[in-house]
Amino acid sequence: MIARPTNPMVSSLLNEMYHVTTAYAYWKAGKHLDRAVFDLCHCKPPFGGEFTVFAGLEECLRFVANFGFEDSGIDYLRSVMPSYVEEEFFGSLKELDCSRVIIHAIPEGTVVFPRVPLIRIEGPLWVVQLLETTFLALVNYASLVATNAARYRLVAGSSKVLLEFGLRRAQGPDGSISASKYCYLGGFDFTSNLEAGRLFGVPVGGTHSHAFVSSFMGLDEIALSRTSENTKFCKDFGTRIQHWLSKLKAKFYSFFSAVESLHVKETNESELAAFGSYALAFPEGFLALVDTYDVMKSGVPNFCAVALALHSLGYKARGIRLDSGDLSYLSKQARAFFRNVEEELNISGFGNTTIIASNDINEDTIDALTKQASSSADEINGFGIGTQLVTCYKQPALGCIYKLVEVNGHSRIKISEDVAKVTIPCKKQCYRLYGEQGFALVDLMQKDEEPAPQVDEPVLCRHPFNLNKVYVVPKRVEPLLQCYWKGSLGKLVKIHQKELPSLKETREYCRQQLAAMRPDHMRIRSPTSYKVSVSAQLYDDFHTALFNEGPVKELR
Amino acid sequence: MIARPTNPMVSSLLNEMYHVTTAYAYWKAGKHLDRAVFDLCHCKPPFGGEFTVFAGLEECLRFVANFGFEDSGIDYLRSVMPSYVEEEFFGSLKELDCSRVIIHAIPEGTVVFPRVPLIRIEGPLWVVQLLETTFLALVNYASLVATNAARYRLVAGSSKVLLEFGLRRAQGPDGSISASKYCYLGGFDFTSNLEAGRLFGVPVGGTHSHAFVSSFMGLDEIALSRTSENTKFCKDFGTRIQHWLSKLKAKFYSFFSAVESLHVKETNESELAAFGSYALAFPEGFLALVDTYDVMKSGVPNFCAVALALHSLGYKARGIRLDSGDLSYLSKQARAFFRNVEEELNISGFGNTTIIASNDINEDTIDALTKQASSSADEINGFGIGTQLVTCYKQPALGCIYKLVEVNGHSRIKISEDVAKVTIPCKKQCYRLYGEQGFALVDLMQKDEEPAPQVDEPVLCRHPFNLNKVYVVPKRVEPLLQCYWKGSLGKLVKIHQKELPSLKETREYCRQQLAAMRPDHMRIRSPTSYKVSVSAQLYDDFHTALFNEGPVKELR
Repeated sequence: MIARPTNPMVSSLLNEMYHVTTAYAYWKAGKHLDRAVFDLCHCKPPFGGEFTVFAGLEECLRFVANFGFEDSGIDYLRSVMPSYVEEEFFGSLKELDCSRVIIHAIPEGTVVFPRVPLIRIEGPLWVVQLLETTFLALVNYASLVATNAARYRLVAGSSKVLLEFGLRRAQGPDGSISASKYCYLGGFDFTSNLEAGRLFGVPVGGTHSHAFVSSFMGLDEIALSRTSENTKFCKDFGTRIQHWLSKLKAKFYSFFSAVESLHVKETNESELAAFGSYALAFPEGFLALVDTYDVMKSGVPNFCAVALALHSLGYKARGIRLDSGDLSYLSKQARAFFRNVEEELNISGFGNTTIIASNDINEDTIDALTKQASSSADEINGFGIGTQLVTCYKQPALGCIYKLVEVNGHSRIKISEDVAKVTIPCKKQCYRLYGEQGFALVDLMQKDEEPAPQVDEPVLCRHPFNLNKVYVVPKRVEPLLQCYWKGSLGKLVKIHQKELPSLKETREYCRQQLAAMRPDHMRIRSPTSYKVSVSAQLYDDFHTALFNEGPVKELR
Repeated sequence: MIARPTNPMVSSLLNEMYHVTTAYAYWKAGKHLDRAVFDLCHCKPPFGGEFTVFAGLEECLRFVANFGFEDSGIDYLRSVMPSYVEEEFFGSLKELDCSRVIIHAIPEGTVVFPRVPLIRIEGPLWVVQLLETTFLALVNYASLVATNAARYRLVAGSSKVLLEFGLRRAQGPDGSISASKYCYLGGFDFTSNLEAGRLFGVPVGGTHSHAFVSSFMGLDEIALSRTSENTKFCKDFGTRIQHWLSKLKAKFYSFFSAVESLHVKETNESELAAFGSYALAFPEGFLALVDTYDVMKSGVPNFCAVALALHSLGYKARGIRLDSGDLSYLSKQARAFFRNVEEELNISGFGNTTIIASNDINEDTIDALTKQASSSADEINGFGIGTQLVTCYKQPALGCIYKLVEVNGHSRIKISEDVAKVTIPCKKQCYRLYGEQGFALVDLMQKDEEPAPQVDEPVLCRHPFNLNKVYVVPKRVEPLLQCYWKGSLGKLVKIHQKELPSLKETREYCRQQLAAMRPDHMRIRSPTSYKVSVSAQLYDDFHTALFNEGPVKELR
């Protein structure tokens, strides 16, 4: 038995009214058991890029495995359908499950391109139609935010720590939990979201709040009200901190007066009390938020005083978080301060104290910081990113579609005046063809019954919409669609003799996928386009259907 | 007992790691029971407008009423906190509830302005701090999407039907359920989302899918495979449809040849079969999606043939949905066709057949259609809106903040280099002052202990950040913050002797709020700014704190 979807609200009623009315019309016309094939695909990668990270598959499979209407759901449907709808229909709905559905999909975490089916769903027409909206809801945002995270990782490089802080600004509670899961999949290291940590094992991280700093009134509040046997604190911790702050003031006044308008005398005492108290609670891994009053005049010297007091007791402070102001400038100033403390006070390694930057950071901020010749980004060790990451500010929706491509063995097509909305008909298999240098050259869609392309044999790849064509001689052929659910077995098909990969495995697979693509396709801006093609046979079927079903345009 | 939050995933663990580490630091310093006051407010209205619709309060109250850590949650926290954290801390966490918390708020659905506290939370420092992120998660998106819906309603006017179709593109399953709820609150009429219908009683609506149309192969499929006693269909429904289509072709060929390149001979037969079958299932309220092949060459004449066949049996068809192409042009063409059918065939009322438009509609589309002098929007009776509405495409996040304003009776402030991030200190009460014409003139924040402004007595209202001030003589004084939760009672405070309003009541209250504001504040673009002010006493306290806590800038 496969677990239910993570969010208990994902049920067969998380669906649109028109699928139920359509199901009734199918049933009424006796067409509901027609054998249908649908493709779920996207038409355009998000954020102006060339690629998408496919995500959301595991939740779709959990949904399928547990699909069915409960009595309360049927009661609700009865209340919103016209009164003449037969009780027999509701009885049939109640019996519905996915025991006759077959699902093929590209593995979760794969780098994918437009038009190629991400999921192929076959089964009784009314059942697979009822899956449409829930599948789209589970794949659209998952793939969008995983792609966003992957882009942030690509611009930040592999050495930076990336923390996802989006819970408070996400679109609804599930938006945040999905965001935390799929940002991790796309390459983030930590989340601040405890529930995502508990549910998916995503590592959790964070510092402390501004309110913690402003809740302190003065130095007399540095008191260890609760001592632990296993911490080495003495009652004079407050005195030690003040000692180190005085030492810093004496030592650095002249240095910082020259470099920056720093008057250590202006350090805020309640901030110092807050940092001291936080260090008492977390002597290991002390990380302070330094912008409550003023970063360079108060936050950084106060942090250093506490860090040096910790050092004198044998502990090592972790670092600071900058949450406002000019992050590039402030990180350079803070780094210079840390290096000087290391040099002047002979504290080995203090110059490498961690600097985390947050505050409305997006892809462009990271890109700009990374590209600065002065290597300012190198002063920042990690980024805490919330709003712009989880809400996908640059483009908050992905437009996956779910379209009928075959009924009872006959290919079907949806025509549209907008060519982007025309669907490619037929039940398909898809292959990724690799060249001599190990990079993927092209994705090829074929009719399901066509033989697979062979290594070292030329394959004709046609552009789906125009007359462009190319012969490819692949050095490796990778079938993209794998079987994940074979309804008659009533359970998940085992892939390569193992169960679905863990989130951590999918994250690693995604990292490999991103690293293996030709870098110019992966560029964040103005990427080279990647070829998606159809076989000669599929091209012919597609264009015959287009000709037969579409209206003839007429100009006068 | 108050019900749990709608989404079961909203628990005390839907929280950020740093609140738990901060809670531990408070506890360790013996400050956790300090009496704190926090304000939840926003700094800037979304979408370039001047107002925000406040939403999410009921879910916050449900969260508060059921707040607490379960054993499994504590176990998880133990696993991610450092090993030296005392067991006593986890024991105390386990006892936490909101029995000593007091919550005041502005009623849900109120039109609100920046800086004014939407919720004021008082209680033990560590408890109210632990509420921060969940409150923000529940208010930010709810208020954002309710405001978006209200703006759509303002541009569409009160006569249009507005349907929310966002489930498939929303950010996660809960994003969609929240969207459906709060779009209804903000003025929408229907949702396509069944679960939102079931949970909140939002009316559900919809048509049928493109796949329904393309699943049909030809006219022989119009068969009533299941008859009901209570429908009047005869076996010859398919023949009747064809009869009416022929009649249309004969009658209208010349008319439409003159106006538009319509060749009724090009109507698609599988579309006709689909419409016929849908009408057999839904003889009342038949509404057809007409753009699967070609709107004017196929969809509209096919719809009319089926509608006329229904009419001959005594039923009335409802209308069409346009989902692609130039909606303004197509709606005018379709309306002209309907009017001609009414006139030529003497079918009274056929000219008023409903036209619903969908396809990536946003505020600007509706605005443009409504403003066209040719009154093309009047040909469209309703809009189905998905992606841009529910993901708030124009601005996908609202930046509410939750800031400490008082500890143990002492006012607290957070300074920032960014003036937008400076918080106004003190426990406050807020009033909306109305003028002679019945419109709200200004919102006034005071210290909680100050006497309320009086009708007909001049009140000094100061700009919080500069020297501007104004005397207001109110004709009506409305206190904005009401008590919703008084922890010592362990239950929701009854407001005016009744429980919380229903969603429908809140929707109506919101409609009245929107109608009662001066229209120039409500303009979608370039609105007149609305004044938010502070009392003289609050101004003095605020600026004293700013002076005392903030660093002195220095220029060299």
